[in-house]
Order: sequence, then structure tokens, then C-alpha cells
Amino acid sequence: MPENITIKTDRLRKIVVDIFVKNGLSEAHAEMIADNLVEANARGVNSHGVLRVENYLNKIKLGSANPTPNIKTVHESPFSAVLDGDNGLGAVVGTEGMRVCRKKAEEVGIGCVAVRNSNHYGSAAYYCLRMAQDDMIAFSCSNVEPLMGPPGAKTVVIGNNPFCMAAPSGKYGLFCSDMATSQIALGKVLDHRITKTKLPGMYAIDADGNPTDDPDAAKFLMPTGLHKGYGIAYQLEILCSMLSGGHFGDQINSMYGAVDKPNNLSHYFMAVKISAFRDVAEFKADMDAMVEYVKSVPTKSGSSIIIPGEPEAASKERAAHDGVSIPSTVIADLVKWAYDSQDIEKYIH
Amino acid sequence: MPENITIKTDRLRKIVVDIFVKNGLSEAHAEMIADNLVEANARGVNSHGVLRVENYLNKIKLGSANPTPNIKTVHESPFSAVLDGDNGLGAVVGTEGMRVCRKKAEEVGIGCVAVRNSNHYGSAAYYCLRMAQDDMIAFSCSNVEPLMGPPGAKTVVIGNNPFCMAAPSGKYGLFCSDMATSQIALGKVLDHRITKTKLPGMYAIDADGNPTDDPDAAKFLMPTGLHKGYGIAYQLEILCSMLSGGHFGDQINSMYGAVDKPNNLSHYFMAVKISAFRDVAEFKADMDAMVEYVKSVPTKSGSSIIIPGEPEAASKERAAHDGVSIPSTVIADLVKWAYDSQDIEKYIH
Repeated sequence: MPENITIKTDRLRKIVVDIFVKNGLSEAHAEMIADNLVEANARGVNSHGVLRVENYLNKIKLGSANPTPNIKTVHESPFSAVLDGDNGLGAVVGTEGMRVCRKKAEEVGIGCVAVRNSNHYGSAAYYCLRMAQDDMIAFSCSNVEPLMGPPGAKTVVIGNNPFCMAAPSGKYGLFCSDMATSQIALGKVLDHRITKTKLPGMYAIDADGNPTDDPDAAKFLMPTGLHKGYGIAYQLEILCSMLSGGHFGDQINSMYGAVDKPNNLSHYFMAVKISAFRDVAEFKADMDAMVEYVKSVPTKSGSSIIIPGEPEAASKERAAHDGVSIPSTVIADLVKWAYDSQDIEKYIH
Repeated sequence: MPENITIKTDRLRKIVVDIFVKNGLSEAHAEMIADNLVEANARGVNSHGVLRVENYLNKIKLGSANPTPNIKTVHESPFSAVLDGDNGLGAVVGTEGMRVCRKKAEEVGIGCVAVRNSNHYGSAAYYCLRMAQDDMIAFSCSNVEPLMGPPGAKTVVIGNNPFCMAAPSGKYGLFCSDMATSQIALGKVLDHRITKTKLPGMYAIDADGNPTDDPDAAKFLMPTGLHKGYGIAYQLEILCSMLSGGHFGDQINSMYGAVDKPNNLSHYFMAVKISAFRDVAEFKADMDAMVEYVKSVPTKSGSSIIIPGEPEAASKERAAHDGVSIPSTVIADLVKWAYDSQDIEKYIH
């Protein structure tokens, strides 16, 4: 394992901004990507953090993502919009989708925005947390390339499409429930191959269509909750590709497997003002009461029950003071890409 | 096992209507309940069919559900509403929630309705299918009494809250994905107790908070996909009780365990017109193309992959011609409650 380096989030963000500005993005767009990735690291979701810079950068260099997208609204109503992301990097296109969604929600109480022709947009939570802090209930999802079949399939038909919902409480911060629709991430399967350990359950499918916990036999992913996650993945696919007129199925290209091609991803954003239903302070008081009820319940370990989003919020709070811990090899790459330098120390403090 | 009787759906519906009219419901409200339950039988979802009449009837007799509810709109905006169900039977309150939701969606393109003070509302699919056939994407969910904890909990904190999404296709009918957020239903655990067979997986939790497949040791339910279903249950809880100002946690009463008390349930309905995003015919053509892509993929058994909602739609089509098959003991009860008669033959043809 490579050693880790601790770096303040504003330093890390600056390095990522400089990388993308150097590669043809506007300052504003580079900041959207840096914000998105560094927040994932701060929240402890390193799989969606600055580790992804390499892929984004390769796509720009190979011409499979557009560094200067002209994101267009192709259909619109007071509460809804369809955007064409012009093959921009996902964090840029996603941030524009979120902006339009939030603006509509502020104007008419609800915003629903479907976005096509985008790339990997980072954590769904990134967008939902921003909208939820404006006293809205926020939802977002994305499609990804097919990585799952239903129980019994011998190949993939649908992505392990991720989704998130966030909502404000009073005293307990933002509720945030963010997940993919497979039981285990593809990256985790690859980790188990490297460490030669079994998966924690029969969470992958082998070439014959049978469930397996052998990472080497794994050909694709088991939906979370078997047929249930399979159904949810379709629900999300409809909100993304079907509502936006985007690509689906084998028209979607793998982020890593086909880095030389546009991902052809679609996203969906929804935000609704709590005040369209009830007094916001009363809503928040009920959210607090629900948290307190849940926390009062006994657990096996004696510790209190965790609310979705709670560990990530605590991690982000720590990161604001202490910075984030990143493998030194990743930092070395970032510094090289940003400044053509091997002098890590010069840029991390 | 009791023998089954095959009965035409319109006959079954008539018997159920007569039961509830006899017990103080208006003809219109009795029809809402009969439609809801008989459609579940027709779709092959017998767990949500006329088997539930007994509970609804007991609640009326015990005074724990209101046969003549005055369902009120307590908050409203052009796209949103909060309804108070006045402790009416869930199918009545739910149908009113759906009506308001659909009306708003027709008027402004989207409707979002949260409903409090209701009872068991039947299948979420019932409402979604009706809204989806008007070229809308429809969503509904309900809370239920706590039946699940997160992994590691020694007791329950949240319901296995059910939800559904439905959407139209062109040639392939309505997509409909309907599920609860536990991996297995409570009723199924009870079935396994009776048949003295193990659960199909570690889908229940014992008194010590450990997963078990022993139905006798089962104390409560495992969320589908472990922590993932736990998170989804919260998402749905927020849409139901938090948005409506309804009850949550231990303020919700068990449908069967506390039949003498109001369930205190909340529901949520959402419908959005596809035309707010794109041409409806193009959306449907893409839905068809997605179905055809999925159907083209090889499976273990050689049969084609099933789309969510497909088996239930086929069952409903068969039932329209052949009727539905119901245990004779259930039919005998219904005839007795409706007509104080033991002459089943007189009423089933």
C-alpha cells in the first residue's frame, strides 16, 4: 500500500483547478470539478474523489470529452427542463443541471431536470446536499453503462445506476442517503481480486449466470436485494435516459473500458421546496424528533444507530480542520499534471 | 391448503362493494376499496387482495377506521398538496390523494401530494398504473409501522416502506416496479413458520440483532440490500410522514397487531407529464427500444428477461377473461359478510 499524505482541502482543490485550466477548461468549470471531487474525499468517499482526475484528463486528451461544452436547454417548462450536456465532463454538466433545477424550484416550488450527453458526474450526494441546504428535498440519479442483469441473466442489461436523496433537519444536519443499485461496487470486486479474498457475499455473477463470491469468477454485478435493485435501476434509467432522450444499454460507454469514447450518460435532478407542503421549521422539528427516536433504540454494539449521511457529514467536518488523507502516488500524479513538477512538498502546504 | 374457487373479477368486486356499503361506506368509497383489492388479485398479488377485507372490516367495527371520512386539503400550491385522511380506509384516502395528484399534474405538468392520517392503502402499483396510463411517470410510497432496523440494531426503527414507479411504453404496456424495502415480507416469514421451512436467505433478525434464516427465531426484517434498503426506507419516510406532518416510528400502529387503533399511516403521490420533457411518442419509442434491447439478451434458462411489471400485467389480462382464483374459505367469509349467507354458489356466478 502506498503511504498517504494529508493535505488541506483548499490546497487540493487548487491543484485540481490548475490541472483542468491547463487542459483547456474555464476557471469556473475547473472549479466545479475540483469542488465535486474534493468534497467526495472530504466526506470519506475516496472512490469518487480526486482519484477520478486521471480518467477525466485522459478523456480530454483523447478527445472523448469536451473541455468547452456548450450546454443547451433543448426543452423547458416552468418546472422542467431537458439539457444537452454537449459531452462536457460530468461534474460541469451536472452542476449546470443542478443550477437549473434549483432555480426552477426557487421560482415555482419544484424543479425537475433531465440531462443527456454527459459523462461521470461524481457523487449524486454532491448535488443533493447543495439543494437540500436551501430547505428543499433533493433527489438526483445517473445512469451508467450496463453492469448488472436480473437474477438468471447471463449478461448485463442495465447499469448499477446510483441515486441520492437529501433533506434538511434542524439540529442534525442534512439527511443524505446515497447509493448504487448493485450490492457491491465494481471497484470493490477488483480490490478483492488484488487481495485474493472472497467477496462479503454472493454479490457477483459468473459467466454462467450464477451468483458467486469469487472475485476472479465475477463477470458482472448482482443488483442490491436481487430483483429489487434490478427494478430500482430501471426506475432510475427511465428518469435519466428516457426523460432526457439520452443513450441507454450498450450505447453507453464504460468510463474506464472505453476511455476513448464519450460516456453518453444521462442524469436527473429534482428539488422541491418543503414550504410547498408545510412550515419548514415544523418539518425540521419532526426530522429532529425522528432522528432522536432512532438514536434512542438499542443496538448490538451499544452505540447509537447511524442516520444515512451522518458518517460522511462528520468526516467532512473533520476534513475542514485536518485536511484529507490521499495516497502519495495520487498526489504526485496531480502535482505532475498541474505543474510538470515532482516537488510535491512545494504544492501541498 | 384450502381449495380455490375461480370467480370473475366483476362478481368479486360486487361482493366487496356490498360488504363495505353494508358497513356504512358510500357506494363510491366502497368501489374504491373493491377496485383496489380485486386488481391486486387480478395482478396475481394475492397478499394485497381481498384477503385484506377482514382487517378493514374489523377496523370499522372496532371504530379504529372511519367509514365516512371527511378528507381535507390542509395545505396547497399549484403543484402540491397535503391532505388529512381523517382516518379513512387507506384505499379511499389513497384514491383521493391520487385524484388530487393527477389533477395537478394535468393542470401544471406535475403533482406532488403528501397524505397523513390514513390506513393501509393497498398496492402502491394500483395508484401508479392509473396515473401512468395518462402519459405520466407516476410514483407513490407509503410508510408502515417499524419492522426493520439497520444492520446491527436489536429492534425496529423504520417500516419496510413500500414504493412503486410506473411509466408507459408504446407496444409493451406499462413499466411498473413495485416493492417493499425489506428483502422478504412479514407475511412470508409467517408462512415459513407454518411450513417449518427456512427463509430463502438471512432475511430476518433475531432477538440479539443477528441475521437469521430461522423463521421461529425471526424477530424483525432485514432491509433489502442491508444498509441500502435501510437508507431507502428513510427516503420514503421523509416523503410520507415528514412532508405530510404525519406520524412516524412508534406512533404508527400495526395493521394486524393493533387492529383496534388507527394505523396513522402517511402516503406520497407524484405524477409528472412526460410532455414536460419531450415528445410522448418519442419517449414511448425509446421505452420500446429499451425493452427490445433487454429482451435480446441471453439468460440461463433460455427464456427472455422479464421487465418489471410484465408478469403482473399478463396475469391481469388473463384474469379479465378467466377470473381470479381465491381460497374458498376467503370467498365464504366475503359472502357471509356481504349477504349473511352460506350459499357461495348463489353469489359467485
